[in-house]
Formats: sequence, structure tokens, C-alpha cells
Amino acid sequence: MRIREVIVTPIAFADPPLLNAVGVHEPWALRSIIELVCDDGVIGLGESYGDERFLGLLREAAERLPGLDVFDLNGVRGAVEESRGAFADSHGLTGGSTPSKTLLSIFSAFEVACLDAQGKAIGRPVVDLLGGKVRDTVPFSAYLFYKWAGHPGAEPDGWGEALDPDGIVAQARRLIDLHGFGSIKLKGGVMPVEEEIEAVRALRRAFPEAPLRIDPNAKWGVETSVKVAADLDGVLEYLEDPTPGIPRMAEVARRVNAPLATNMCVVAFEHIPEAVRLGAIGVLLSDHHYWGGLSLTQDVSTLCETFGIGLSMHSNSHLGISLAAMVHVAAATRHLSYACDTHRPWQGSDDVIEAGPMTFVDGAVAVPGGPGLGVELDRDALARLHEQYLSCGLRHRDDTAYMRSIEPGFEPDLGRW
Amino acid sequence: MRIREVIVTPIAFADPPLLNAVGVHEPWALRSIIELVCDDGVIGLGESYGDERFLGLLREAAERLPGLDVFDLNGVRGAVEESRGAFADSHGLTGGSTPSKTLLSIFSAFEVACLDAQGKAIGRPVVDLLGGKVRDTVPFSAYLFYKWAGHPGAEPDGWGEALDPDGIVAQARRLIDLHGFGSIKLKGGVMPVEEEIEAVRALRRAFPEAPLRIDPNAKWGVETSVKVAADLDGVLEYLEDPTPGIPRMAEVARRVNAPLATNMCVVAFEHIPEAVRLGAIGVLLSDHHYWGGLSLTQDVSTLCETFGIGLSMHSNSHLGISLAAMVHVAAATRHLSYACDTHRPWQGSDDVIEAGPMTFVDGAVAVPGGPGLGVELDRDALARLHEQYLSCGLRHRDDTAYMRSIEPGFEPDLGRW
Repeated sequence: MRIREVIVTPIAFADPPLLNAVGVHEPWALRSIIELVCDDGVIGLGESYGDERFLGLLREAAERLPGLDVFDLNGVRGAVEESRGAFADSHGLTGGSTPSKTLLSIFSAFEVACLDAQGKAIGRPVVDLLGGKVRDTVPFSAYLFYKWAGHPGAEPDGWGEALDPDGIVAQARRLIDLHGFGSIKLKGGVMPVEEEIEAVRALRRAFPEAPLRIDPNAKWGVETSVKVAADLDGVLEYLEDPTPGIPRMAEVARRVNAPLATNMCVVAFEHIPEAVRLGAIGVLLSDHHYWGGLSLTQDVSTLCETFGIGLSMHSNSHLGISLAAMVHVAAATRHLSYACDTHRPWQGSDDVIEAGPMTFVDGAVAVPGGPGLGVELDRDALARLHEQYLSCGLRHRDDTAYMRSIEPGFEPDLGRW
Repeated sequence: MRIREVIVTPIAFADPPLLNAVGVHEPWALRSIIELVCDDGVIGLGESYGDERFLGLLREAAERLPGLDVFDLNGVRGAVEESRGAFADSHGLTGGSTPSKTLLSIFSAFEVACLDAQGKAIGRPVVDLLGGKVRDTVPFSAYLFYKWAGHPGAEPDGWGEALDPDGIVAQARRLIDLHGFGSIKLKGGVMPVEEEIEAVRALRRAFPEAPLRIDPNAKWGVETSVKVAADLDGVLEYLEDPTPGIPRMAEVARRVNAPLATNMCVVAFEHIPEAVRLGAIGVLLSDHHYWGGLSLTQDVSTLCETFGIGLSMHSNSHLGISLAAMVHVAAATRHLSYACDTHRPWQGSDDVIEAGPMTFVDGAVAVPGGPGLGVELDRDALARLHEQYLSCGLRHRDDTAYMRSIEPGFEPDLGRW
């Protein structure tokens, strides 16, 4: 079953003003939707980053795919590698960027689409191509953000302001009421450290049973990280990326009880040896979008299991094709033992899949049972979100520039607090 | 597609008196042939160890498989784990044995058979289920053994005696004439060290271009290992298991130029961290029979690639189902960059697959293109080899006891020379 045509469609969807260590989410989040049209009419779906530079890399690689068999994932990877001239400008939405990470990010978009096409062709869900289900549903955490009431100059977005512990607890309650999440993650690195500690304490009081995490996106220095971990000792399930770089993470790890998690200092295979040698991390947040797809995510799991590192899952702003892919690989991966991250609730009713966003029940998503990823493209929605892309004017994500347009003195440096 | 019945058939085939560090191959080699009979009539094939104890573990696990989907590899693994009570007596044909290695050995036999059934069901070769071919043929090395002219009391076996450098070179020439091998491996740990060094030098003179390896199965001490590596500096592609245990291997590795390879000190995932930490090995000889099957062998490859460790492939005495499985996984595994080991040429025309043994051309086996493993069971041959099992009297492999029946004072201790 050979690839006849590859269609890459950039889309934009509304995003609330979610604050983070480097700035604030812009009004539109960008993604790409990949369609592998096969010679027998099957269409394999993928979803990935939507920055213009990344789109260029995707399209350049896409030109090399027609004629390849959708089961020939190594051939697809080889085709991506052959377009490597484009990788000098490496792309980085998450942690550092390396040529190998960029390559695996491009490959991932197509690997997922190939697996979707494979599953559709043989009438099997993708989870069956990955070894079968070890769980019927995949738990996610409530992903809390400090946020404004709305984007400046726009109407309030309906999620309300969250700039203090009460606002964070209210946000958690709303997300949990809507989706039933059992775990809670707070995106930190935004407010003075004492306020973020107080927010976590308020969450602990409000949700005594929920595993709690805080992720300041490496905004803190070593001493601050150690102090936060001491103040919240016994409260955190894990402390995510408190400080930048493997050596500093390792120093923190030596001095605190909570496991350190990362999706910033270990984001490519070449980072693993140093992290292992220094004992820098206790949990890796995998992300199939840059670890090279669903099959390599399972290899990452084996790697983590071998070295006694836990496995959780990272998310950027995304829609339903990415969520379905995350659910399939999480369902097939034994060692993935933490609730996963997802931004999906922040995207409201916008999606590109038929019947709208997948449903969280008790904070978990059921593994789709249909062939492939088990989701179908809503072409009207795709057209609408592509129109939004064309009209929104954004072509790459820049949380810092957007923040500085509002707060000119904003300082995004990591490790500074 | 569910498993209806699992048939485990022990077989025996004639084996020449191949000498090694712990003794000599007995006149019969034992294997097990696994058939997963599915509800739609598809039969998935596997091949593994044939010792009585291992057969018992296989059969105990096999009882738990009917009703499982052949795509549910995680379910099959779970069923094997549930029969874990049987694993207290761990099994060890290769290197040390651990409960996890035994578990993965049992699982592997069924995983391969499931993949064969999957491929047959969807009309795809197994290599396509593993990511597709990165090579069309898989190279193997000429596997040389010191040997007697025949088993004591029996007719000469036709391979001739090989007890000195001339005999080894003649054996290499014959194997290369027959099969076209481009690499050569000598099983050492048999003769006084100087004689084995001289045999390698004779091979180098006779085959100036062929990559050479020697594998004394950890019979040597650290100082001997270092001396051999120095004497053969620049001659060996790698030095395989010169001495027992990760710490001693690490000491040798620090003092020699040749990469050290192993299928003895790193034979389960739990061995990898120490080997990495101490820098003990430069090449891992993988073996799907105990690393948990074809998919986990690919995870091992990713692990090795991540830590800068090369990957080759180990073999025990085996027939065509195992060879086909090795070829499929090797063909799909990018990082596997050395010619693989195989005992297959020593088994002559005996096999359980239709049309007899797979052919080596220029030392390589072409990846079968048919569905699944691309081999079919020859039921007459299976019946004949099962009869040989019943009549041969052997029920477990014991190279040392057999050697002592001929040389009563034989001493198998590893690391002693």
C-alpha cells in the first residue's frame, strides 16, 4: 500500500492567554495536519507543529514520500534524512533543539500517519500495531495555568482569571468538574516562587488525594529549586524541570526527595547518557512528536525502565489527532505509569476530527476501537481552521514577543529566579 | 484473530562435536517448535530452546494463551508473567540466567509465533511489522569451531577434525566455499591461548580482508585477555567475552584497543546499567530468543545506539524458523551493523521448514518475502525430528558432562586461564 500524495495543512485554533516562564500563549495556536493519501484510497492522519519553519521541513520531506509503502517506516525515515539539508535551522518548541531531534520530529508526523494508514488498511486500531492494550483508558492530569481573564483587547475567554491560589484552585475545580481528572499539574515559573508554593499548598488542601506536580519550565536556579522541593516535601508527585540543564538538574536531584521530571533537558537520545550518568532525572516526560513517533516512544520507555527512570507524557497545545496518537501509544506502553499531560481542554470545542473533541471520563480517554487512530478528519472543520491560519497572521510561536507587546520589560531568562 | 491452541513439539537434530569452553556439543541438539493455531486456521510458528525444564515452562505458559488475540503481545506477555511460579528454577543456556531473562525467553517464543501469525493474516512479511527493510539481505559470519573428526564411537561427521591452525583455516575455507561468508568468528576457550592466537593469525594470512573475531566464552582471566588483545591488536574486529563478568570485562576494556563484545555478561536489561557505567562493552550480541522477541530486540538496538554500543547477533544451535526470525529482525534494525552469528551450517540438511534450510548467498540470507516469517512447517520433517528427540535420550544440554564422559578430568571453570 503505497503513498500517492502527502497533504500538509496548517491550521490555527483559538488559545487562551496561558502564562508560562517565557511569556504567554498567543491568541492562536498553530498546528499542521498531515494526510498520507495511499494508492488504495486509505488516508493516514498525523498532527504536528505548525510553525512556518517546521512546515517547510515537513513539506520538503513530504515530497520524497510518494511511492513508499506505508509499512516501510524505515524507508520513510530514510526519506526524511535525505532532506536533511533543511535541518541546519533547527526547530525548537520544547527544550533545546538538536538536528537529530528535528529529524525525529519530522519523521514522527509521518510515522503516526503511516501507522494510521496501516491500521485502517488491516482493520486494526493502532494500539494493536504497538503490542496491544495494557490499559483500556489513558489517564490525563488537569493542566493548570496562571492566566489573564482574556487576551488584552479581547473579550474574556470564559475560563476566568487565575493569578493567585484561589484562582488556581477554582480553575482546578472547573477542569475536574468538567473532565474528572485525578491528577493536577500547575504550570509555574510565572509568579514569585512563594506564591507558587502557596498555590500548590492550596491545591493540596482543596484536593487532598490528587497527585500534584509543578513545572516552572526551568525558570528557577538550583537554590530556589531545592528550597521549593523542601517546602513542598511530601506534597509533590514530581517536580518538573525546576532548573535548566542536566548538570543543574543533577545537583537539585542530589539534594531533594521528590523525583525530578523533564521535557526540557532530555529531549533527544543523545541527552540520555549524561542524564543517566549524573542521575539527573527520575521521570522522563516523553512526547511522540519529537521522540520520533509511537514506536520509538516505546523504545524510550524500555530505555527508561532499564535505567529505573519513570515515564510520563508531555503535551503542547494540540487537537484530536495528536490526542488519539498519545492515547494509543500510552495504552500499549507498560512502563508509562503516570497520568499524561494534555492541553486539549483549553481548546474548547475546536477540533479537526469528526464528532468533535474526544471525551475525558474520570480524567481518562478510552482507547479508540476503530481502525487506525480511530478518528476521522472533519473536512469542514479542517477548512475552517485552515482559514483561521490564513487570516490570523501568526506564522510562528513566540510567547515572549507577545508578552513583551503587553509587558515591555518582560524577562524570559531561564534559571534566573 | 484469537489463539485456539498452542502446540509445543520438542525436536532433536544431529550436531557435530563442536568444542567450547565448557565442553563439547553432544550428538543431538534440542529445540522446541511452537505452533499457535488461530481460530481462522492461520498457524504462527516459533522456535526456541528444547531443554526439558524450558519445555515445561513453555507448556505451562502455553496453557494460558488460548483466547488471546495474536496482536495482543502485551496480553501474551502478561499470560507468561502469570505463570511465573515456574520461574524459580531459572534456565540458562547463554551467560547467566535471571528470572526476567527466563520470562523474556518464554515470551519470545510466543512473540515470534504471534508476529508470524499476524503477518500471515494480513499478507505481510514480519519485517514489515518491525518497520520495514533497511537491507534486503542479512550477512552472517563463518562460525568456526575446534572439533574432533566425529563423536567418539561414531563415524567421522564429514566436517573433518580441526584441532590446530591448519584445521581451522581448512574449516573456514570450506564454510566460505559453501556459503560465501565474508566475516569469520572462531569459538575459542578450547586450546592453550598461544595456539588460539596462532589460529587467528593463520586466518588473517589466509583471509586478509575478512573481519575476524574470537570468542573464548569467558575462559580467560584479565591478564590473558589483555595479552591476547595486545598480540592481536589491529587483527580483531572485536574480542568476544574474553573474561567473565562485567567488572573484569570493564578492566580489560580499559586496557585494550579492540571493542569487547558480549552475549554472556549482558544478557538481560538489568545488566545494562552496570555495563554502561563501567564502559565494559563495545558491542552487544543480541539474541531475540532471550531478549524478549523481535520487537524488544529493536528496543535493545535503540538502547545500544543511545549509549554508543555496537550491535551484533548471537546464535545457539538452531534451525530455519529461528534463522528466519533473526533475518527479519536484523533486516529491520538500522543499528545492527555487524555480520550475525549462526550455527545453521553445522546442522547440514536437517530442518523443519519446507524446501529445507535457507540458502546463504555471499554469506547472507535474503529476507523472505512471503507472509509472516516466510517459512512453512515441513510436517514430515517435524515428525522425524520429534522421533529423534524421543529416541535420542537427551533431555537437557550438558556439554560439560558429555566432555567428562570422554575426558574425565575436564575443567570448565570460566576465567581460569
